[in-house]
Amino acid sequence: MKQINVQVGFLGLGNIGGGVWRLLKQMRAEIEARESIKFTIKRVLVRDLYKRRSVNVPNDILTARVQDILDDPEITLVVEALGGEQPAADYIKRALEAGKSVVTANKLALATHWLELLETANHRGVGLFFEAGVCGAIPIIRTVTDSLQANRIERLFGIINGTTNYILSEMSAKDATYADALFEAQRLGLAEPDPTADVEGGDAACKLAILSTLAFHAHVPLSGIFKRGITTITPLDVSYGRELGYALKLLAVSKRVGDRIQARVHPTFVPLTHPLSAVSGSFNAVYLYGHASGELMLYGRGAGDYPTASAVVSDMIAAARGRQGPAYRMTSDVTMDDDWESRYFIRLSAVDRPGVLGAIASILGRHGVSIASMRQNTMGLDHAPLMFVTHAARERDVRASLTEIGENLATIENVIYVEDMKEGE
Amino acid sequence: MKQINVQVGFLGLGNIGGGVWRLLKQMRAEIEARESIKFTIKRVLVRDLYKRRSVNVPNDILTARVQDILDDPEITLVVEALGGEQPAADYIKRALEAGKSVVTANKLALATHWLELLETANHRGVGLFFEAGVCGAIPIIRTVTDSLQANRIERLFGIINGTTNYILSEMSAKDATYADALFEAQRLGLAEPDPTADVEGGDAACKLAILSTLAFHAHVPLSGIFKRGITTITPLDVSYGRELGYALKLLAVSKRVGDRIQARVHPTFVPLTHPLSAVSGSFNAVYLYGHASGELMLYGRGAGDYPTASAVVSDMIAAARGRQGPAYRMTSDVTMDDDWESRYFIRLSAVDRPGVLGAIASILGRHGVSIASMRQNTMGLDHAPLMFVTHAARERDVRASLTEIGENLATIENVIYVEDMKEGE
Repeated sequence: MKQINVQVGFLGLGNIGGGVWRLLKQMRAEIEARESIKFTIKRVLVRDLYKRRSVNVPNDILTARVQDILDDPEITLVVEALGGEQPAADYIKRALEAGKSVVTANKLALATHWLELLETANHRGVGLFFEAGVCGAIPIIRTVTDSLQANRIERLFGIINGTTNYILSEMSAKDATYADALFEAQRLGLAEPDPTADVEGGDAACKLAILSTLAFHAHVPLSGIFKRGITTITPLDVSYGRELGYALKLLAVSKRVGDRIQARVHPTFVPLTHPLSAVSGSFNAVYLYGHASGELMLYGRGAGDYPTASAVVSDMIAAARGRQGPAYRMTSDVTMDDDWESRYFIRLSAVDRPGVLGAIASILGRHGVSIASMRQNTMGLDHAPLMFVTHAARERDVRASLTEIGENLATIENVIYVEDMKEGE
Repeated sequence: MKQINVQVGFLGLGNIGGGVWRLLKQMRAEIEARESIKFTIKRVLVRDLYKRRSVNVPNDILTARVQDILDDPEITLVVEALGGEQPAADYIKRALEAGKSVVTANKLALATHWLELLETANHRGVGLFFEAGVCGAIPIIRTVTDSLQANRIERLFGIINGTTNYILSEMSAKDATYADALFEAQRLGLAEPDPTADVEGGDAACKLAILSTLAFHAHVPLSGIFKRGITTITPLDVSYGRELGYALKLLAVSKRVGDRIQARVHPTFVPLTHPLSAVSGSFNAVYLYGHASGELMLYGRGAGDYPTASAVVSDMIAAARGRQGPAYRMTSDVTMDDDWESRYFIRLSAVDRPGVLGAIASILGRHGVSIASMRQNTMGLDHAPLMFVTHAARERDVRASLTEIGENLATIENVIYVEDMKEGE
């Protein structure tokens, strides 16, 4: 095999950029020997030229001007590791327009500028790779695009945010409150000082938009994804769910039903018998069903400098070989479905007076929401804790009945989706 | 994208060949639209031209002469689905020599003729693909070769034979005997009438040879793999193990320690807390550890016509794009290690007389085998059931001590490896 020499420009040298730098340096000999590819990092864009860094990068390749990379014709591959929507998305686009392939770990820039960036890459015939943007070291992008081409992927479930999975695992293992578990996650560096993007589901929604678009061959926009975070989850929800045979996960769900697609991120009860229920701590996993492959699950480290760098370098190798990255052909038109069917766990504090239970049941019944099981703890309080799990019901009907119930019969403490992960559901 | 037209020759039209035929037909429009590839199956080699078939293949493309495919210059891609070592290996080699790319699901032909086939493919610059040969629909080959290039893979554990995993799962769930569980597997078509290749570990050893070779970048020959089957496993072993916190699996294990490689297939106790322990029924899973990626597990359907066809078609697409298949560069020399350390579960029937237990413990101690836990059921029988779990000990020392113990102190009922799956072990 003839050796391929590639000159690379880095955008950013933080946690991810630094990890890629170190991994490339560490594995240089192996990559040259096995893959016949020699990467030379010619330029690195940083914000502050004089900051002390944990990686030992020669000063003369640092630059604070992005043009030094975008305008350099010798640089044919750009690794974007800035994070954030802008200016990253703009730089990616300009690099593609300049005929350079781009490898990025930036799910936000990608999910928000998907059509524009893919179109630019296709138009210029250059590669755009983003394995590291979705679940770190887990090769889920490559699996969907390079291994499942002969499949109709019908549904996909993911634990694709490690921070929230860590928090929910802690709440489950230690009966901790959300606040305590979040604090512990922050202390360990698993959650940001401002944890909003993780705990409200925004990060997972970006990944789900990308995954669903590739899996369904139809553009699933970020704006079409329903999301709810984990901030209202209490230890009670977790422990009641466990008694019923479920683990609580922030689950990303997408399903294709005919020409309609559902895509949503929300706290979800998953059966303890399902492999996803065993994915704990900061691990990620994606479980999908292809009509030919059957059930498939990938599990691993969704974040961290080296796991992310592992995926970035694999993309750099694909780019160096002249590949174009995940082919993106919208072969089908879809409508986003915002009135799906699901089972629901509903926790209420009912007013403690005769006939309330019957009144609640009758409201649910009138809206076509049927109760699969119920638990009531009567302890002589003003408000009696009450829990239902429903049979499959339409979102709209559940909302309407809860609005009615909430008026004067009960306080709605929490509503959590229950996903039985059954075929055809 | 310009459409690529590929004329294909099929070798074999049994379960796998027929599955590929049906899947290609079903997904033709999608593959043309999304991938811009049009496959035309020009010729199909079958043994009996006049047999009734479940797939509807035009008579005029059937042939009983392999030359009709190997000598046809228009056929640039051969899909080998004959199974068995010969003549499959010979046909694969001749197809490669004729400048055709080959996609095969044949782990036996591949593992036994690895160097010869890879060398031929490299020499002729054509592709040789075998994703379907290792764990059906699970993209483990592509993951190791296309996603983990920047990793030093240090250890790999697999449940890579669905038949034995089904049998052991049945034994565990229903306290069934080996014979009954095998019978049930045969009734369901999950085990062959002659189950030897599955239950004695031969099938798993072929897959492990291929996986280890790719993971360690060093040729791990089939002959270097230690194997032991599941035929001597009793419901007692399974239930005692469960009490100790372990699930019993036919585990394929390979580890790299310096320039030494261990590769072995044997019944193994896996902690119930480890994700592999939850892989039940006929499912397969591979769990590995890369120094950058960290822990990674892939789980799915390791066999069946459609799951296998899913992998075959993905390989056909890679071949059609002119890729060469898993690059194989032996960048390191290795020695096979046949004296590994492990923990062991040892079940004995000890002669029931005073001092026997002390004598057994002292023999183990003299050989450097230290006991982590012990259970004894004394029921006034001639022979007392006795179980040990050892700390990590050398295989050679365990064998030597058991030979000595077996001489007049106890009958060795079973010895089962215990794998704690810890880092660095």
